Amino acid sequence: MLNLAIVGPGLVGSEFIAQITRAKLPFVRIVAISNSRRMLLNANGLSPASWTTDLAASSTQTDLAELARHTASTATGTPGTRSVIVDCTSSEHVAKQYPNWLGQGLSIVTPNKKAFSGDSALWKDIFESAKKSKSLVYHESTVGAGLPILSTLKDLVETGDSISRIEGIFSGTLSYLFNNFSSPSPTVASASFSSIVTKAKSLGYTEPDPRDDLNGMDVARKVVILARVAGLELDLKTLEVQNIVPKELQSATSAEEFMKALPSADKHFDALNEEARKEGCVLRYVGCVDPVNGCSVKLAKYPLSHPFAALTGSDNIVAFTTSYFPSPLIIQGAGAGAAVTSFGMFSDLLKIARVNGLC
Amino acid sequence: MLNLAIVGPGLVGSEFIAQITRAKLPFVRIVAISNSRRMLLNANGLSPASWTTDLAASSTQTDLAELARHTASTATGTPGTRSVIVDCTSSEHVAKQYPNWLGQGLSIVTPNKKAFSGDSALWKDIFESAKKSKSLVYHESTVGAGLPILSTLKDLVETGDSISRIEGIFSGTLSYLFNNFSSPSPTVASASFSSIVTKAKSLGYTEPDPRDDLNGMDVARKVVILARVAGLELDLKTLEVQNIVPKELQSATSAEEFMKALPSADKHFDALNEEARKEGCVLRYVGCVDPVNGCSVKLAKYPLSHPFAALTGSDNIVAFTTSYFPSPLIIQGAGAGAAVTSFGMFSDLLKIARVNGLC
Repeated sequence: MLNLAIVGPGLVGSEFIAQITRAKLPFVRIVAISNSRRMLLNANGLSPASWTTDLAASSTQTDLAELARHTASTATGTPGTRSVIVDCTSSEHVAKQYPNWLGQGLSIVTPNKKAFSGDSALWKDIFESAKKSKSLVYHESTVGAGLPILSTLKDLVETGDSISRIEGIFSGTLSYLFNNFSSPSPTVASASFSSIVTKAKSLGYTEPDPRDDLNGMDVARKVVILARVAGLELDLKTLEVQNIVPKELQSATSAEEFMKALPSADKHFDALNEEARKEGCVLRYVGCVDPVNGCSVKLAKYPLSHPFAALTGSDNIVAFTTSYFPSPLIIQGAGAGAAVTSFGMFSDLLKIARVNGLC
Repeated sequence: MLNLAIVGPGLVGSEFIAQITRAKLPFVRIVAISNSRRMLLNANGLSPASWTTDLAASSTQTDLAELARHTASTATGTPGTRSVIVDCTSSEHVAKQYPNWLGQGLSIVTPNKKAFSGDSALWKDIFESAKKSKSLVYHESTVGAGLPILSTLKDLVETGDSISRIEGIFSGTLSYLFNNFSSPSPTVASASFSSIVTKAKSLGYTEPDPRDDLNGMDVARKVVILARVAGLELDLKTLEVQNIVPKELQSATSAEEFMKALPSADKHFDALNEEARKEGCVLRYVGCVDPVNGCSVKLAKYPLSHPFAALTGSDNIVAFTTSYFPSPLIIQGAGAGAAVTSFGMFSDLLKIARVNGLC
C-alpha cells in the first residue's frame, strides 16, 4: 500500500487526486491533505469524492510536522507499505522539510522546483537523507512537466553515458512567445512582440507579471536541476541568465505599467528577429547544459532546419547529445498544465509502487 | 546483487557486456554466457575482460535448461539478489523459454521481438508467469532501441490516460530511405529510389536482402508490441501491412537478383513521390496504433510542417496523442545500432536494480 499526504491541493494537486482516483489503483490511499490553513488526517483513508468540502470544514490547523508524523506512522510496522508526501506547492518552506521527512522514512513526489534548484546544500541533504533511510525522491515534473526528461537523463547518467550537451526550450510561455514571434514560415508576417505577450497574458499563458517569465529565472531553475541530475555542480547564482526585459522596463513598478510600456520595446525585438531572419534563423529562448563549455540560459538563433525551429504552440523540447546519441535523443510535448504535470507526478508514484512490488 | 546470464553475445550482447563493465556497478555480476554452441557458467562471476577467449575455449555445450537452472540457483536463498537472463538473440526458440524461466524466478531483459510480437498466447503466458512468480520482464529495446518509448507508453496506460493514436517511424532503414528519397527541401533533387537502396545496403543499413526491410514485417512486429502494451489485442496475422516491394520483384530468387531488378521500380516510386510533392507532402513509412480506427503499417503522405517530414538520417520517431497530450508527446532519435540497443537493455536492468533497492 502507498499512503499519500497531499500538501497544497491547488490546480495541480486537485488534478492529481482526480487522476489517481480515476485510475482506481487498489494500492493507493490518501491519508492526509493540507492547504496553507487546514488539514485532514485519516490513517484509514480520506474520501476522494468529498475532500474539498471535508477540508473546508476541517477544524484542524495545518501543522506540517504533525502531518509528517501522522503520514509516516501509517506505514510503520506494515511491510510492503510506504508513505509518500506529494508536495504540490511551490513553497521553499515546504521544500526545506524534505531532508527531515525523508529521514522519517517518508518518500517525496513533487513538481516543486525549489528544493532542487536552490542551495546546493539542500540538494545534498535531500539525497543523503534519502540514501540513509532508503526513502525515495522523484521530481520528474520539475522539468518539462510529464515529459520523460529527468528519468531519461538519469538512465543516461547511470548507464555510464557521457553527456556532451543538453539543450532545450523549457518554458511553455517563452516557447509560445517566440514560436509566434519568430516563425520559420516565410509567409507568416510576425505580429509585434508586445501584442503577442498581451495575447499570451490574456490566455493565462504568462505569470501575472510577464516579466517573471521574460527574466528567464524559471528556465534557469530547470537548467540547474538538469545540470545536477547530470552530475554537475551548478548554482542559480553562478548561472549566466539572459533577462530579455529591456533595462528601461525592468524598473516598471507594476505589471500594468510594464505592459503599457512594452510596445516601446517592439523595435528592439523586431531588430533581433530581422537579424536572425537574414541569417536563415529563428529566435528561441533556450537553456543549455554543457559540461565543457558551461551552462547558459539565453535567446539564441537556430537555423530553420533545426527541430527547435519547427516547434509550435507552447510545447517544450529537449535534445540530449551524448556518446550513445551523437545525433540527439529528442523529447517534445506540452511542458506545462495541470494534466501533464500531474501525469509526471503519477508516473513518479508508479516508480515507487514498482519498487514496493505493487505493480 | 543482480546475477546475469547473457544469451547470444553477438554485436549487441558484446556491447552490453562492455557497457555494464564500463559502468562498474558494484551490484552486477555475469554468472553465465552462452552462444549457440558453447556456454560458460560460474556462480562467482565471469571475467568481463576475458569472456570472448574463455567462451571460445569452453568445452561445455550450450544447454539452455542447464543455463537457466544454474542462473536461478545463484540467487536462491540470498535475499536482495535477483537473477536475470539477458536474451540478446532474435531467436523464437529462446523466446519460447521465457514463461518457464520466469516461473523459476528468473527475470528477463531483451531486445528480442519474437516473444512479444508472436502468438498472443505466448504474450499471455509470459506476463502471467511473471506475475505469479514476481519476476520482471523488460523489453524497451524491442521498439526504437534505447528511446524511452515503451516505458513512456506503460506510464500513460497505467496512469489511466486514454490513448487516441500512436504513430511513428520505427525502422531506421525505412527512415533513411524515405528521408533521402522524399525530402521536404524543394532544393534537394531526389536520387532514384534504387540508388538510395543500393547506397543504404553498401553502408550496412539494410538487411542482407533489403526486401526484409521493405516488406514492413519488422515495423509490423513493433506495432504489435506497441498495441499490446497499450492494452489492445493485436496479432501479426490480422495486421494490415503494406509490402512496398513491387509485386514483380517479390519473386526474385536472391538479393542480388532483386537489387539488379530494382531500377525497374524507380518510375513507380517517382510517381508516388511526385504525387506527394504536388500535395505539399513527403512520403514516410509509418506504423500506427489507433484503438478506434485500427492499426496499420504503410507508406503515407505527411505535410512538410509535420515532425515526421523533418526527420533526418535514420532516426526513429514516435508521436503519442492522448487525453493528457492532445498535442502529441514526441520522442525521436537513433532507433537502431548496438550502442543504443544496449543502452535500452541497460536502462531495463536499472529498473530491476531499483526494484531490488540496489540503486
